[in-house]
Amino acid sequence: MTSTVPARPALAPEVAENLVHRVNVGDSLTRTASRHPERTAIVDGERRWTYRELNAWVNRLAHGLAARGYARGDALALASGNSAEFLLTYYACAKLGVVCVPINLGWRADEVAYVLQDSGARGLVIEAQLVGALAPAVEQSPGVGEVVVAPGTGTSADTTGLTRTVAALDDVLAAETGDPEVVVGDRDPITYLYTSGTTSAPKGVMGNHLAIYLESLTMALEAKFDEDDRFVAMLPMFHTAQLNTHCTPAIMVGATIHVLRAFDPAVLLALIERERVTQIFGLPVMYRAMLDHPEVTTRDLSSLRRACYAMAPMPEAQVRRAIEVLGCDLYLLFGQTEMSPTATLFRPEHQLSHPGAVGTPVVNVQLGIMDPDGALLPPGQEGEIVYRGPHTMTGYLHNTEATDRVFAHGWFHSGDIGRVDDDGILWFTDRSKDVIKTGGENVASLEVERALYADASVGEVAVLGLPHERWSEAITAVVVPAAGQRVDPDALVADLAGRLDRYKLPKSVIVVDELPRTSTGKIQKNVLRERYADHYEG
Amino acid sequence: MTSTVPARPALAPEVAENLVHRVNVGDSLTRTASRHPERTAIVDGERRWTYRELNAWVNRLAHGLAARGYARGDALALASGNSAEFLLTYYACAKLGVVCVPINLGWRADEVAYVLQDSGARGLVIEAQLVGALAPAVEQSPGVGEVVVAPGTGTSADTTGLTRTVAALDDVLAAETGDPEVVVGDRDPITYLYTSGTTSAPKGVMGNHLAIYLESLTMALEAKFDEDDRFVAMLPMFHTAQLNTHCTPAIMVGATIHVLRAFDPAVLLALIERERVTQIFGLPVMYRAMLDHPEVTTRDLSSLRRACYAMAPMPEAQVRRAIEVLGCDLYLLFGQTEMSPTATLFRPEHQLSHPGAVGTPVVNVQLGIMDPDGALLPPGQEGEIVYRGPHTMTGYLHNTEATDRVFAHGWFHSGDIGRVDDDGILWFTDRSKDVIKTGGENVASLEVERALYADASVGEVAVLGLPHERWSEAITAVVVPAAGQRVDPDALVADLAGRLDRYKLPKSVIVVDELPRTSTGKIQKNVLRERYADHYEG
Repeated sequence: MTSTVPARPALAPEVAENLVHRVNVGDSLTRTASRHPERTAIVDGERRWTYRELNAWVNRLAHGLAARGYARGDALALASGNSAEFLLTYYACAKLGVVCVPINLGWRADEVAYVLQDSGARGLVIEAQLVGALAPAVEQSPGVGEVVVAPGTGTSADTTGLTRTVAALDDVLAAETGDPEVVVGDRDPITYLYTSGTTSAPKGVMGNHLAIYLESLTMALEAKFDEDDRFVAMLPMFHTAQLNTHCTPAIMVGATIHVLRAFDPAVLLALIERERVTQIFGLPVMYRAMLDHPEVTTRDLSSLRRACYAMAPMPEAQVRRAIEVLGCDLYLLFGQTEMSPTATLFRPEHQLSHPGAVGTPVVNVQLGIMDPDGALLPPGQEGEIVYRGPHTMTGYLHNTEATDRVFAHGWFHSGDIGRVDDDGILWFTDRSKDVIKTGGENVASLEVERALYADASVGEVAVLGLPHERWSEAITAVVVPAAGQRVDPDALVADLAGRLDRYKLPKSVIVVDELPRTSTGKIQKNVLRERYADHYEG
Repeated sequence: MTSTVPARPALAPEVAENLVHRVNVGDSLTRTASRHPERTAIVDGERRWTYRELNAWVNRLAHGLAARGYARGDALALASGNSAEFLLTYYACAKLGVVCVPINLGWRADEVAYVLQDSGARGLVIEAQLVGALAPAVEQSPGVGEVVVAPGTGTSADTTGLTRTVAALDDVLAAETGDPEVVVGDRDPITYLYTSGTTSAPKGVMGNHLAIYLESLTMALEAKFDEDDRFVAMLPMFHTAQLNTHCTPAIMVGATIHVLRAFDPAVLLALIERERVTQIFGLPVMYRAMLDHPEVTTRDLSSLRRACYAMAPMPEAQVRRAIEVLGCDLYLLFGQTEMSPTATLFRPEHQLSHPGAVGTPVVNVQLGIMDPDGALLPPGQEGEIVYRGPHTMTGYLHNTEATDRVFAHGWFHSGDIGRVDDDGILWFTDRSKDVIKTGGENVASLEVERALYADASVGEVAVLGLPHERWSEAITAVVVPAAGQRVDPDALVADLAGRLDRYKLPKSVIVVDELPRTSTGKIQKNVLRERYADHYEG
């Protein structure tokens, strides 16, 4: 028996013990590179990496970061659109035990500065075209010692006003391509993902290796991912939904990820045909754009196996149309950042039999409906949706009080209101804080929204309560007309009258061209509430 | 919102924090009972339990054990054939954080006594018909304070000579059916599984919740288990292979387990037909018995989706016959207790293209071939098979020296010799200690066994080295003839001469009626070596 590799010194027992049986998200890439070295891992524009190449690239960055002093527990911020370099940085951090802090590109500069400081980031990896815009936030954050610039869209970096060390990502890569062998714990933080802050200051959700690893296994198991799948990453990777329900599982099983910097229905339809894409993942609004696009009938979409929509139910008519036109299984993924994020899947077999539901729990999640005293409620009763299971975050960074509060009674409190029906299927009613209190009654805005969606003239709608002298909060619908339709507010409300209790009818309908959204596509009701705060005055 | 359950006192934050996101094998039953309450969990003879019933039963035992003082970290031994009560006890222990110590029913009394003492078991759950035989071992073990008697085969317990507290299992059950809420850590031990000791004193393999949980997810994902599967448990549950590759994953996904106390081909074939069994799992020798049974052609086996064989390759002709006759996917599971146990799966698509291989690593396992200096070897080179990944045991109980040795260089050292081919597929050559040193050459006994299996007259064979004045060890084949065949030793060796190097030819062929085996079906070469130690003397 002859060796082509030199003998190596014995590792300390505690290092050996960690390497031999730890859970680390980076190790799943290492193993895939070993099992499927020549399969295509990432396609980003004209660039392609096999798993062997991707793993070597990740290892070069990890060794490069280690050489610059990054070690277990340090935080490294990452400001990037969807790109191979995003995943490169995420996996390099994972292998070192460094905490990756993705920057949401929809944040204002003061929010970015808050996150850079709150997370304790000691460096920032940033795409070139973003440097100019984020320089002021970096300057406000003395802890950020250096800025590493990734190529991004090819625009050269505007470093005016940036007083930190600046390095090009390529220059940070070490020559060493072997796997780094350092201690990382199962429950070490892998990311601080700041919630988008629709109601309060952003909170840093501490995700850990074990939770993200199990999330990846859940998706692979329950959404039936395998090494023959070809995914499109078109939702922002800085959001947990794209990153951890589709990218990390794809890498775990050895599938291919096609990176799109943004959603464009024509580009997506052409890509599905050209690359024989098997899995897509988007917001309901993206599916509508696809289905409305003329090429949806001319492109060959027969490779599609599954289409996942995220976070919110689709109107029933759209579900029917999507199933018919796309010709594949359709399912909804429901959860939140604190759950890494998947809590339930609304499964293909339930799409038509239980329209509007949000599904059944995944294998790692236990679901409960809880009353305010911590008692679990039986099927049919409405209460707060609570979860338990190893997907759950470690807690909120620097905020044990908030952590203890959301972990009360040994369950994660989602802040969502819902009920479980007799088939064990979860129905989401509303955000608990989003219940409209009107004339002494509580009304779930979702119920009113569902009733409005049944009207063909309605494209999108947000229902909220606005201050009102008599009603305390007046139910108000902000409506975007469907393509080619006109909305008549009086006729719309008159139509609703037969389908909703009188007290649930909107007091007013506001017609707009579009609804304000977070960068991850959530409708910002807080923005609407501010905008129309005086709607009923005078 | 009204509650039907009384408000409950707030849990301490550390308890809430544990419950909200820990990994516990018992929680997977809790969750399945919540997702699939009315599905059938276990069928044992005439008795059937739904998941709701099984979970309530497990909780009653857990509360009963807690009331008797069992707590996190305590050890409880379990001596039982395959039965619902075996799984009941295993899951009750898991939920409490109590360590279950399965007793191998093939052990001698002194081995049982060794394990009872080494594990620190403070109690023993035992089937009634085993009490008489194991009483002396209990008496030698002062730590075992009480004996809990399960009904077993219905024979009443012979408690003569047993001076401990004796309770009936039914009397230990508490009334409380809710889930116990106590702290259990991800890496807490779930079992001490003692290796069967073919070479040295038994070692207690500390399995942990996380490793077993991930093993279950691996099997569900890679062997494609789901809630519509119906399994047969016919290998001993006290062995990790039956317990953790088929029972725990079945319970995780909500499938049905049909418990067989022992393997009988006629009973199995009838069961497959009657219960529409989808998954079977047995030793190669069991498949041969099935295939040789007259009813294999008359029973309806069309429900079978997958047939798994364990631990050792099947002769190629048998693989072909099994695929043809059973009409389902065939795959081999390869690993060892220390890996919880799955390391590789020899997948259906490779059965005929790579006959004799042991497969490719599963998603949680990284595979390496290592030279004695700790260097990883490239494809094609032979060395020790090593593994890394979260299936790996915590270590050996009370034996950090042995643990550090098998974890050297941050890999688990399997003690097996093998190589990886250019397709990334693992080939097992031999146990490292089983290489025959003959005339200055090393010969893998497996290679000689494979060559012998190609002869139609050979039913089973074990090749070993026996002491010999000239050859140091003489290669010797101990052969069981195939059904209805006669083995002519001289003709057999003459036939081999064209297919094996001369120095690899057996110096002698011993024909026997059967080979000695451990209770889990492994051929005991150590017994053969003793029996024939003087074969070449005089």
